[in-house]
Amino acid sequence: MILQIYLIFEGHFLSSSKFFFMQYSQNFRTHDCGSLRIEDVNKKIVLSGWVQRIRKLGGITFVDLRDRFGITQLYFSEDLSKDINTKLAREFVIKVQGEVIERSNKNPNLPTGDIEILVKDYQVLSKSKTPPFTIEDETDGGDELRMKYRYLDLRRKPLQENIILRNKVNFETRNYLNQLGFLDIETPFLIKSTPEGARDFIVPSRMNAGEFYALPQSPQIFKQLLMVSGFDKYYQIVKCFRDEDLRADRQPEFTQIDCELSFVEQEDILNTFEGLIQHLFKKVKNIELPTPFPRLSYEEAMRKYGNDKPDIRFDMAFVTLKAPQGDLNKDYKGIDKTSGANFKVLDDSEFIAGIIVPNAASWSRKQIDTWTKWVKEPQRGMGGMIYVKYQEDGTVRSSIDKFYSEEQLKVWLEMGNAKPGDMMLLLSGKTNEVRKALSALRMEIANELGLRDPEVFAPLWVLDFPLLEYTEEDVDGGGAGRWIAMHHPFTSPKKEHIEWLKDESKFEYIAANAYDIVLNGHEIGGGSIRIHNKEVQQSMFKTLGLSEEESQKQFGFLLDAFEYGVPPHGGIAFGFDRLCALMGGEESIRDFIAFPKNNAGRDVMLKAPSSVDQNQLDELALQINKDKIQNQEK
Amino acid sequence: MILQIYLIFEGHFLSSSKFFFMQYSQNFRTHDCGSLRIEDVNKKIVLSGWVQRIRKLGGITFVDLRDRFGITQLYFSEDLSKDINTKLAREFVIKVQGEVIERSNKNPNLPTGDIEILVKDYQVLSKSKTPPFTIEDETDGGDELRMKYRYLDLRRKPLQENIILRNKVNFETRNYLNQLGFLDIETPFLIKSTPEGARDFIVPSRMNAGEFYALPQSPQIFKQLLMVSGFDKYYQIVKCFRDEDLRADRQPEFTQIDCELSFVEQEDILNTFEGLIQHLFKKVKNIELPTPFPRLSYEEAMRKYGNDKPDIRFDMAFVTLKAPQGDLNKDYKGIDKTSGANFKVLDDSEFIAGIIVPNAASWSRKQIDTWTKWVKEPQRGMGGMIYVKYQEDGTVRSSIDKFYSEEQLKVWLEMGNAKPGDMMLLLSGKTNEVRKALSALRMEIANELGLRDPEVFAPLWVLDFPLLEYTEEDVDGGGAGRWIAMHHPFTSPKKEHIEWLKDESKFEYIAANAYDIVLNGHEIGGGSIRIHNKEVQQSMFKTLGLSEEESQKQFGFLLDAFEYGVPPHGGIAFGFDRLCALMGGEESIRDFIAFPKNNAGRDVMLKAPSSVDQNQLDELALQINKDKIQNQEK
Repeated sequence: MILQIYLIFEGHFLSSSKFFFMQYSQNFRTHDCGSLRIEDVNKKIVLSGWVQRIRKLGGITFVDLRDRFGITQLYFSEDLSKDINTKLAREFVIKVQGEVIERSNKNPNLPTGDIEILVKDYQVLSKSKTPPFTIEDETDGGDELRMKYRYLDLRRKPLQENIILRNKVNFETRNYLNQLGFLDIETPFLIKSTPEGARDFIVPSRMNAGEFYALPQSPQIFKQLLMVSGFDKYYQIVKCFRDEDLRADRQPEFTQIDCELSFVEQEDILNTFEGLIQHLFKKVKNIELPTPFPRLSYEEAMRKYGNDKPDIRFDMAFVTLKAPQGDLNKDYKGIDKTSGANFKVLDDSEFIAGIIVPNAASWSRKQIDTWTKWVKEPQRGMGGMIYVKYQEDGTVRSSIDKFYSEEQLKVWLEMGNAKPGDMMLLLSGKTNEVRKALSALRMEIANELGLRDPEVFAPLWVLDFPLLEYTEEDVDGGGAGRWIAMHHPFTSPKKEHIEWLKDESKFEYIAANAYDIVLNGHEIGGGSIRIHNKEVQQSMFKTLGLSEEESQKQFGFLLDAFEYGVPPHGGIAFGFDRLCALMGGEESIRDFIAFPKNNAGRDVMLKAPSSVDQNQLDELALQINKDKIQNQEK
Repeated sequence: MILQIYLIFEGHFLSSSKFFFMQYSQNFRTHDCGSLRIEDVNKKIVLSGWVQRIRKLGGITFVDLRDRFGITQLYFSEDLSKDINTKLAREFVIKVQGEVIERSNKNPNLPTGDIEILVKDYQVLSKSKTPPFTIEDETDGGDELRMKYRYLDLRRKPLQENIILRNKVNFETRNYLNQLGFLDIETPFLIKSTPEGARDFIVPSRMNAGEFYALPQSPQIFKQLLMVSGFDKYYQIVKCFRDEDLRADRQPEFTQIDCELSFVEQEDILNTFEGLIQHLFKKVKNIELPTPFPRLSYEEAMRKYGNDKPDIRFDMAFVTLKAPQGDLNKDYKGIDKTSGANFKVLDDSEFIAGIIVPNAASWSRKQIDTWTKWVKEPQRGMGGMIYVKYQEDGTVRSSIDKFYSEEQLKVWLEMGNAKPGDMMLLLSGKTNEVRKALSALRMEIANELGLRDPEVFAPLWVLDFPLLEYTEEDVDGGGAGRWIAMHHPFTSPKKEHIEWLKDESKFEYIAANAYDIVLNGHEIGGGSIRIHNKEVQQSMFKTLGLSEEESQKQFGFLLDAFEYGVPPHGGIAFGFDRLCALMGGEESIRDFIAFPKNNAGRDVMLKAPSSVDQNQLDELALQINKDKIQNQEK
């Protein structure tokens, strides 16, 4: 019994395919290109793979044969080498029969580097044109070319490793959740379009011509219905769709790890899913992440890092010198460490904060000017930047030492625990703008200082998000801004704030049972405990300015379902593409997706989207309105 | 080490959630409703769940509390029972605190039947209206109502078991394939529309207005590209889409287990995937299916069962009395056991075959008439049916004993190994029509005789499908029928038939490296070894009447990819919905899908598809052509 289990277990984690070869016919290969070792010398073997490189050396020829498991060197004798240039070239697929021999010139960088194959015979299984770029770790192909020939780009080892890592993260996610009793339940892709949230992709129906399905932006409503049905714990690794104007590194279709649980509290969800992240890092990267993960409230995150997804691989927390009473937190008393010096710039600022840059007192004027220029660029929009250098000799030099004494400046430095040799950089202005700019400055300087090592992983929870946010956007055409749900309209307010749903002056202070999980400055997941009480839900809709009619129209079937016994429930969704990219040590998701779209939403390999026949449109009772196509790039 | 493995292994197969409760806060529950036993007596526990049933008994009350793990009986004392009718009703979600006590009146049909909970306190977590149908194994709800309230129907145990079974089949499929080194690689959903095959669902693009994506009918082309990329072994459990007029038990979106392998032969694929089915039945149903599975060529299947997906749980193979030379197989010599009797009906028939129905010699005239009527119905379209009874006393009685002697008829009976007491039923006419009708008769009689036990499983392979089939349909508008690919245009012909691609008179005899896996009369999967040779592919396109230009237009990027070194490869895809339904002992897939569509492609719970705002259409540069909407039902 135990032995059998052991074998099954091993099977899960075999990276090469030893099990595979036990079962398969050996006409094409007895081994893969990554598995032969010095112990295999004298074995008669068959290998198949791609020709990576051909090197003539006098009369003989060396060929590197590649598959996804590795590279094995082939040795072609003088006899076989004679016409080899007319028979073989890069990226040909060949099969060789031969014998494993010891290499005289060993390659310690290659797992198979101690051996080579003395080729007895070979066949070309298929030929290749010269590829448009080199199939090497570092390629000479440009982005556009690589996207067009994605199937060739995917032959390169870094991309293969990304896709294989993604496969592992997927499998281990399932292992972990399955172990905890989660059920993988598929939810539909052809659903109903709703006006809330981001823009839906819609799908015209032929059988119900003139009507449309929508592709899901997430399975949110279905997973809540599954809780109503009593499935208790649900998960899915599932494609979602959002028709947004694509910013860099967004995809119109993306993948979520989507989860929902019944009869749980926020604490249960945090424990379960930091356990998931811990499990994934252990199994996939052999990294032990200590738990519990650090936790910050939304307010703390904003106050310390100006950002609800702080990168905490490094410190440089904000030192706030001036902030208005109230701030984000009603209990916050306000602060002012700058007034009284008659320095108008700061006196006129609502908010002043800085960061302590370690060992930066030695920065030149020019360096500082570069950063000043950077914060003044339109994206940051600051009026300027103040520096306070805590010099190695203990003295202080600052761009504003005309206004503030050394003692005053030292108070500021000490508020940030600066040491001699450090420098404080200060920004001032409106609270939100300063926070945003200072957060960007903190990140950018950390990049420059090499403090954002992609192989260091610092996860944390950000908790207690505001339930509501005010948008100036005229969402419903009623002519004014309004309060909208920050997460979604089913997110529950903190128990002690439920009463405030009736008092607009308190809307901005209502905290939600909502949480994000953040890794290295990126939100990798987020969720909430949902409302399961009909009265609270109605209160919430009222707060959002939805009449009973409107809420019925938009969420009718979910509200109906909520009439029939809803368990307390909550959930979370992870951005799977982002999680994989970060685990792979990269910021961009594109190379962790086998067939991504470009920033115009196009698949340049497929040439999609494309025009369709009028017949096809007729069946759907559709017609293209050419007037509405405005100078779009094709 | 071994111990740890054991725990992980156990985790996979825990049906109740013991692991779960070790980790979670116990505010809502310390146990689920299926786990308490006599050993737990005296324990203080917390349970949460749905009220299944309330029974007053004198002053006290019994409540059955339900969750997906089971049912536990609650005992409310007289005190707590007083106002219980005003506080509790069916489908309310409640939480109870209490103590496990031994039941005086044990219920041996319930795993928790030895105990009950002496309730100390309870809270209503949420209320329920009276559900529109009973939440019981056998419900009083009609189809339409149950679809509308799908979230309530999903509370019923038979449906919960289906969905949980599906989850297990999914997980164990992954376990098996992962073990063999298959990689789960996601392929895109927003792809390019192609005119070949069934109708695509299309998705209008906003960023490229006037153009459309298509939803994939299968990831066929992507999995072949992944082989070109060298990923070696790919799998995915993936949604696919087909805009067909829905017959009963078809869904516009359905799920496939999709697989592709490089450097393999057909035999490898058959071994690997009968291994998968064996693994699934062992893990999910604890049934040992012996391997190798039986194999039939397409020709044998058609000759023995008139059907390329025969149900072999029972015999009743065809006895062919007359068939033209050639038949489906060029080596087949033809047969004639009926001529010379001057019986015009049979003399004029191209094809005559029958089945031996066991123990049916005693059927009454009326019974036989009923079946005769049945084969004459338009779906079968037969002119009549002949019976030959092999009576218990060894004599023969037949509807045609005017034309054939007892000796002649006995020859026929013996060809089918009939025993006294059996009866032969014969149909005659055109080959394909008789095969179809006789196959239907065989299945229907087997149903009647109880020979199709849903808990008996008889898988088999059907091999050597024809490569091509002739369609009278004017597919390309050229005014005539043509040869099309039976599987798809990338399926390889048998090596020895490649030459025949140049000789139209031989097209019908070309066999493909294509295979189906059949279970209990349903095709559950199919696939082929693909063409990886450019010249053969071009030959194939020529055979299909595609010019180089047309094939380039339709399959351009795949043909491009095939220029750069293609490994020999092949694959298979399983109909996941069907597989789950059959494993669950049912013929209909609908109740193995959490949220299915009805036969009009509508989700009656969501009310999808639906109309969308003109704004939304404007952004897509679309307008509805009302003239084309013809009296469609809404």
